[in-house]
Parts: sequence; C-alpha cells; structure tokens
Amino acid sequence: MLKIAVICIGDELLKGSTVNTNLTFIGERLTREGAPPVFAQEVPDTEAGISGALDRALAEADCIITTGGLGPTADDVTKEYIARRLGLRLEEDSETAIRIRQFWKMRHHTEEIPSRVFNQALVPVGAQVVPNEFGTAPGLILQGPGGRKIILLPGPPGELEPMFESGVLPVLREEIQSAGQVFTKLFRLAGAGETDVEDRTLEILGKRHPLTAAYCAEPGLVRLFLNSPDPFVLNEAAADVQTVFPKELIDPGSATLAEELIRLLRQEKAVMATAESCTGGLVAKLLTDIPGSSDVFLGGVVSYANEIKTGLLGVDPETLRKYGAVSPQTAVEMVQGLAERFRCDGAVSLTGVAGPGGGTPEKPVGLVYAGIFWRGETEVHELRLRRSRAQIRAWAAASAMNLLRLKILAK
Amino acid sequence: MLKIAVICIGDELLKGSTVNTNLTFIGERLTREGAPPVFAQEVPDTEAGISGALDRALAEADCIITTGGLGPTADDVTKEYIARRLGLRLEEDSETAIRIRQFWKMRHHTEEIPSRVFNQALVPVGAQVVPNEFGTAPGLILQGPGGRKIILLPGPPGELEPMFESGVLPVLREEIQSAGQVFTKLFRLAGAGETDVEDRTLEILGKRHPLTAAYCAEPGLVRLFLNSPDPFVLNEAAADVQTVFPKELIDPGSATLAEELIRLLRQEKAVMATAESCTGGLVAKLLTDIPGSSDVFLGGVVSYANEIKTGLLGVDPETLRKYGAVSPQTAVEMVQGLAERFRCDGAVSLTGVAGPGGGTPEKPVGLVYAGIFWRGETEVHELRLRRSRAQIRAWAAASAMNLLRLKILAK
Repeated sequence: MLKIAVICIGDELLKGSTVNTNLTFIGERLTREGAPPVFAQEVPDTEAGISGALDRALAEADCIITTGGLGPTADDVTKEYIARRLGLRLEEDSETAIRIRQFWKMRHHTEEIPSRVFNQALVPVGAQVVPNEFGTAPGLILQGPGGRKIILLPGPPGELEPMFESGVLPVLREEIQSAGQVFTKLFRLAGAGETDVEDRTLEILGKRHPLTAAYCAEPGLVRLFLNSPDPFVLNEAAADVQTVFPKELIDPGSATLAEELIRLLRQEKAVMATAESCTGGLVAKLLTDIPGSSDVFLGGVVSYANEIKTGLLGVDPETLRKYGAVSPQTAVEMVQGLAERFRCDGAVSLTGVAGPGGGTPEKPVGLVYAGIFWRGETEVHELRLRRSRAQIRAWAAASAMNLLRLKILAK
Repeated sequence: MLKIAVICIGDELLKGSTVNTNLTFIGERLTREGAPPVFAQEVPDTEAGISGALDRALAEADCIITTGGLGPTADDVTKEYIARRLGLRLEEDSETAIRIRQFWKMRHHTEEIPSRVFNQALVPVGAQVVPNEFGTAPGLILQGPGGRKIILLPGPPGELEPMFESGVLPVLREEIQSAGQVFTKLFRLAGAGETDVEDRTLEILGKRHPLTAAYCAEPGLVRLFLNSPDPFVLNEAAADVQTVFPKELIDPGSATLAEELIRLLRQEKAVMATAESCTGGLVAKLLTDIPGSSDVFLGGVVSYANEIKTGLLGVDPETLRKYGAVSPQTAVEMVQGLAERFRCDGAVSLTGVAGPGGGTPEKPVGLVYAGIFWRGETEVHELRLRRSRAQIRAWAAASAMNLLRLKILAK
C-alpha cells in the first residue's frame, strides 16, 4: 500500500483556534481511494517545525502532502523552506503570474499587486503547478528524495478541497493503484444508532473474509466503512448491507441527509418548505448547502419569536397560550400553516428547547417537537435529545429531514 | 519554554471520519498557559503507529500527551504498547477497580463487568492515575526516559476535557512555569483582509520587542495572534492593536461576528431579523448558534423562491420582473418589507448567485446584494465573491453581519 503522510502547517492548528478539517477531508478522500494516510502531523509555521516534519515523513512515507503556509503573509513559509530543504531554486511561473494578476484585479479592482502577493507566482524549479481557482496561492507537486512526491496545498478549505479533487487525486490514483490497494466502501445509514449499526454489521463480518469495518456517527447518520483487499468480497458485503439496512441505507450519491431528501423530492417532482424555531434556520441552511436545491426547496420561516409564529405561520395565539411554543400542538399548526402559505407537497416544523437555559421540569432542555407534512397528511414526533445546544440543534434538524424522508418512502 | 508534543491515536482521525477536536482543546488550553504544543501527530491504533509516534516525540519534546486508545474494545491498545515501550509492567490499581465497578453498576444496573472493561483497572507500575468521572478508562501520568512526563488520556472529549482541566493542567502548570512561558493574545478583526491586517500589524511589530505575530483568515474575520515571553510588551502591543484597528477589532468576549453583533444589539436594546435568499438561512443559523440570541433575534424568512419574496416579504413582482431577484432593488425591498412585518430595529437581506450554476455575464456566480436596515435607514451593498458555493455563502453571511455591525457603530 502506498504510504502517504500528511503534514498540516500552521500555528493556529496547535494553538487551538482552528480545527484541522483539512486532515479530515484528505483522510476521507484517500481512504476512499484505498490508501488512508499512515500518519499525520501538525507543526508551526517555522523552518524548524516544517523541516522536522518533512524529515519524519520522509523517513516513513512514499508520498507527502502538506497543507497551509502558501499564502502571501510573512508566516506563509512552507514553499521557501521545503524548496530549500530539497535544494530547489524558485523561479517565476508565467501562467501563475497571469492568474494572480487577473484574480487580484477582479477581487480588488486594482492593477497594483503587493509584491508579497506576487511572490506566490514563484515556484520551485521542476514543480508541477496545481492551479487555484479560488485564491492566489497555487498548489505544487515536487519530486522529493527517491522520487517521492511532495504535494503542497494551501490551507483555506475552500481552496484546498477543489484543488485536491481536480489536481491531486488523479496524480495520486496511479501511484496508489500500482502500490496495491485496500478497498473501502462507504455506506451512509440514516436514523440508526452507532451500536445498533455495529451489532447488525457483525453478522456481515462473520460470513465475509477478509473484511473489516469502521463506524462513525454524525447527527442523524452513521457512516459505515467496509474495508477489504478483495473487491469481490467487498461487493458481496455491499449487497449484504442493503438487506441488513433496507430502511436506513441512503443513496450512495447522497453525502448528507439533506442531499438524499432533495434527491427523493426531485424524484417525486415535489417541493418543500421549513418552519424552524429552535433550529433557527439550520434545516434551510443544510438544504441550501446543496447546489440546485432551489428545484425542490421554496424557502421557510425562522419563527424564533412567538409573534412570527402567529403572524407569518398563522399559529393560533390561543394554542401558544394554552400549550406553549414547545408543544405538539404548536408544531402541528406551524407545519400546517407553512404548507398552506407555501402551497408545498412537503414541510417540516421544529420547536423545542435547545438550551443551555430555558429548561423546566415539564419541558427540559433537549425536548423538541417535529411536525412533518407530506401531501395532505400531518404527523408530529417528540424528540428527547440530552446533548449540548449545538448537538441538540444538529440532531433535531437531522431527525426532521429523516422523518420526512421516511414519510416519502412510505407512500 | 516547555516543549510539549501531542499524539492523537485512532484510525478514525486518519480516515476522515472524526475531526480531531481533542487537539484543538488541548492546544487552546496549553496556549493560554503559555506553552502551546511544539507539534502534534495523528497515528493509527497499531503498535508500529504508536511507538513510531512516541519515538518522534521523545526525540524533540520534554513532555508528551496522548489521546485515545484507552477504552475497553479490541482496538484500544495505547496503554499496553506504551508500557511495553517503556518497559513497565501492568498491575491492578485498586481505587480504579472500585471506580470502574461503581460506574458500571450505575450505568448498566448489573454487578457483572466484562473482563475487557475491567482490564482498564490495570495501570503501569509507578503511574499516577487521573480519575475519569464520565467513563471507565483512567488517565495515566508516566515517567518516561530522562524523567519526561508521558500523559495518557482517553479519546472521548466528554471524558478527556474535564480530566485535562482537573488532573493534568495542575501538574503541567508547574513544569511550564519553571521552563519559561510564551504568552499569546488573540485579536479578532472584522471586515479586513489578511494582507491588510499584516501591513498594519508590521508597524506594531516594528516598535515592540520581543514580539511575533501570526494570522488566520476565516469568512469575514481575521484572527491575529501576538506572542511574547514578556507580558508587559504584550499588553502594550494590545493597546496598539486598538489604535491601529479601531473599526475592525471586536470585543475579546466575542468569538464570532454573530456573537459580536448580538452583543451590540443587546447593548442597544434592539431586535433584528433576516431575509435570506442565496444564504438560505445561514445568517439566522449563525445568530441562533449563540445561546440567548432570542433576546435580540426575532427570526427571519428564507425566500428561496420568488413567490416567497413577494408573498411573505412584500417584494413588488414588478421589481422582480424588471430588475430580477438578484438586484439592489430586490435586496432593498426584501429588507424593508422584512423590517415592516417584523417591526424590528435592524434587519439584513441577502440575494445573490451562490453557484456553481445560474451565473450569467451580467450576473456572475458570486454577485450578492446585501440590504442593511437600521432604525429607519436602509442601504444596499454589492459584493463580488469569486469563491466556491460554500465560501460565497459564508462570506455573504459574514459581510451582512459586519455591515449591520458597522451601521450600528456609526450611530
């Protein structure tokens, strides 16, 4: 198997002001390709930090990917130090120079470019350039000692992610395949608990060899990774997953519950809307994260205050007075008022206590009511989520999307 | 300065199924103490992975902290491998044994404990035990080669975090202080570019010594870190930052733009609402991420479809026909319609082309109009964000919040 090491460069990663999602992204992509990283490091923006990490990685890995430190500021030193460590001179790359000029002009409406921004057009001799569509720092693929590839990528995820997909993966794929893969299949299971998934997966592991599994829970979804060096075993296991998780398994093309819900709505030629109190727009945000969601998502109301629930959603003030904002009655009136006003096939409403404050013995933090409307039928579900505010909101949003998904499938 | 290395153990960290928030937590705490980690590593749950990481860390660090691999399942091997690497025998710790019994009984209502759970009571000879209130795996403080401390902590953040605070920090604090600290101050600057921030910071670095800076950009905000071994220098530099960035510097108590906006609104005894098209609820989500936001945030409308813009926000269909949904005119009517209906002091509207599809030569992907309303006055701003869909949405949301913030401050 190709041994890939990841080096993430930046003080902010060690000082706790930035969570290293670049490692998560790269790790997940490489795992899918059959070569998860063998180890990763976070180091500061210093020559000692960077060359130390490079030495450690060169000692063990066939290929090295670095993130960060390619920007225009003084603490962006990755390129200089690695070029020096490899004994490579820097020279201007004309295409990159043009790109930077165009980008700067467009972003800042001026011809004048600070010289250190322009320094980003300097690349080590012999480097393969990975163009950056969303920033000025290009990615670089260098030949290290023993022909080992050293791949430099900028830190901002919005720049790194598309560059990794389009410029880096195709290059790595060849090397990974010639080095021998461990194949991984990822399955996303909606509305099941991690231990439940683990228990039900054991029967699959029992009858297929060689086969290993890994589990990862996120709000509303468990990701199940099956790994095998034998693609046939992996395909048989994939068939097993479909029979063991008939309701939970979502379409492999859907990376999130929101994407799966949008896929189903499109298939049904249906449109939906949202009415959110405790989740404050999170469901709408998750749906509109998906390009093209406007085909099936009309919009919604964030009814944080009661006046909005009555004014925009037509919830009866009497209902709020009698049962309170956090009640099955309010959830039902929210979703029905929404469906009427938006004239949609599907709708979800959420009202609950996200905390940390505002809980009472009868209505504790984590109590959430989800109203689900689908083509004339309404149902309401009670959720009890004993978690942090962020987790309560994330799980409530995921649950509402999954409940509508199941309602659509039940038809 | 005490050189601390962090080793995070677990396949899930390298396969991209878990984001390493333990590193963020430990890094932030150690930075506050004046000794940020010198480097960190993620390695798989294998003997090769763990002892390799330990060797790399021992070569450079005075103190090593490991996370993960202390649990009861088969892939929890950290304690065994490190004890073996240090040549330490395992023996039962009676207090831990009692603790595990009590915990198990309370959690599972049975006296029977699986032997693999009970293995967690075995600790290396001479280890200092850090009790675990929220799980069964104890933390361990070992003496490594040259008297260097090696601190083992369990992976679940809910267990690690309180153990680190109560059991580990007091021990480290002594060592950090005797080794000499580097102090760090974090400043958050809203609505400034990273290069602009660096330019203006150079004058501060020019007149204060010893002082170093690091920069980290996120949508709408640049984080500026100033570091010095001399707390007096750092305090003088902090005063400089206030004079150099009078408009940009936000309250140190605000970790995000949303938090700062909510703080200002509360100070003004004002309430606000949102009307979002291209951001699809993201601004509302960011505001309601903050506990207690209901004091100042009434709610909003996600007007993805034009019917919603006209129906719920009272945008004139003629305006949509003449100028289009993505236009300054529509942004203004959205924010004014919203402010009327919600009777609020402040309001923001966003309409734009988030992409990747839907762009035209006149209205390219990344063109966004932000309507800002504050106590009777309305203004509209044009944004041109050449980024990915996610980045366009994040920057549009941040810009709208910052524009309202500046409008409030201008009063």
